[in-house]
Amino acid sequence: MNQQQFSSGLLENAVQEFSKLPGIGRKTALRLVLHLLRQPENEVEMFGNSVISLRRDIKYCKKCHNISDTETCLICANQARDGETICVVENIRDVMSIENTQQFRGLYHVLGGIISPMDGVGPSDLEIDSLIKRVQNDNVKEVILALSTTMEGDTTNFYIFRKLAPLEVKITTIARGVAIGDELEYADEITLGRSILNRVEFTNSFK
Amino acid sequence: MNQQQFSSGLLENAVQEFSKLPGIGRKTALRLVLHLLRQPENEVEMFGNSVISLRRDIKYCKKCHNISDTETCLICANQARDGETICVVENIRDVMSIENTQQFRGLYHVLGGIISPMDGVGPSDLEIDSLIKRVQNDNVKEVILALSTTMEGDTTNFYIFRKLAPLEVKITTIARGVAIGDELEYADEITLGRSILNRVEFTNSFK
Repeated sequence: MNQQQFSSGLLENAVQEFSKLPGIGRKTALRLVLHLLRQPENEVEMFGNSVISLRRDIKYCKKCHNISDTETCLICANQARDGETICVVENIRDVMSIENTQQFRGLYHVLGGIISPMDGVGPSDLEIDSLIKRVQNDNVKEVILALSTTMEGDTTNFYIFRKLAPLEVKITTIARGVAIGDELEYADEITLGRSILNRVEFTNSFK
Repeated sequence: MNQQQFSSGLLENAVQEFSKLPGIGRKTALRLVLHLLRQPENEVEMFGNSVISLRRDIKYCKKCHNISDTETCLICANQARDGETICVVENIRDVMSIENTQQFRGLYHVLGGIISPMDGVGPSDLEIDSLIKRVQNDNVKEVILALSTTMEGDTTNFYIFRKLAPLEVKITTIARGVAIGDELEYADEITLGRSILNRVEFTNSFK
């Protein structure tokens, strides 16, 4: 089905556009496009315009750089949240993941990536300076580093740590260990090793 | 992740639109939308406009009802094709599938469905009358019925057969049997039974 030319250039065009999406091959693209072709014209317009206006009108919160419809995002604007704690994440998906847990009531800071010399991403490409400024000006008591545990993540963690060290702020990182529900024998050695080193005092939460 | 509200209404909207596509859940929709968000604005516009203009500007060939950019589709307009043979199919995907085999050089006739009383689809909802007219007027020598072998397909086949019977036209149906490369022991009994009934004379194609 790969090099097939459809009998319609419009169809060919739409299928090609869908095929550019990650994980969507030509067959799936065709299925999706034919589905849209069967929908009422106004619904297809709503579909097309939703992505166009998203890309055109989306804003990034000037405080935390999270995705937003307004200058300041809903999280930063929410007075009920704890402005003294900032959780540093790589991208907006991480914000969504943590928000989903409903365990964090502080604010975020989206770096927009991590330091990666291989990909040509240096500290100046990330929102690190604005993080330092927030810590200096906004009465921040704790910065939680929630980056991935890769070489790049560790480098970024260390860079931020060094920048924040002179300031009076507590710096923490999210706990790493064996996932809840996982069996020890299937945990990788590094995770298991670290979870022993970073053991915490036992509290009976059923009490 | 199901009932999650994103921090942006625009994002929420785009994700909802993508989730309406068949086989695309909310998580996949979010992944696709975030991918589009990282693309240049003009590329996202091309994506959105490609589906809008497809839906708005698409035509159906007035002769065979296949999808087309023009009044008459490229297949019907192609003088090199055999206008005396018409292959009757259910939908445009079937045209694509048969075209992909590169084994058929005749023309098509897209019914736009099959007779299905359960779904309220009767003969008048399908392009059957226009098929009869083509056979009467266009010097058609053979009509190949290539509908699915379901109750509905058989009903439609029989209906068309009865309509065409008074006309001087050969009516055939595509061969059903054990798929090439399939082992007999795994073929279903109906297919295997029919492939024995409809056996063909052996020709050594390697000669």
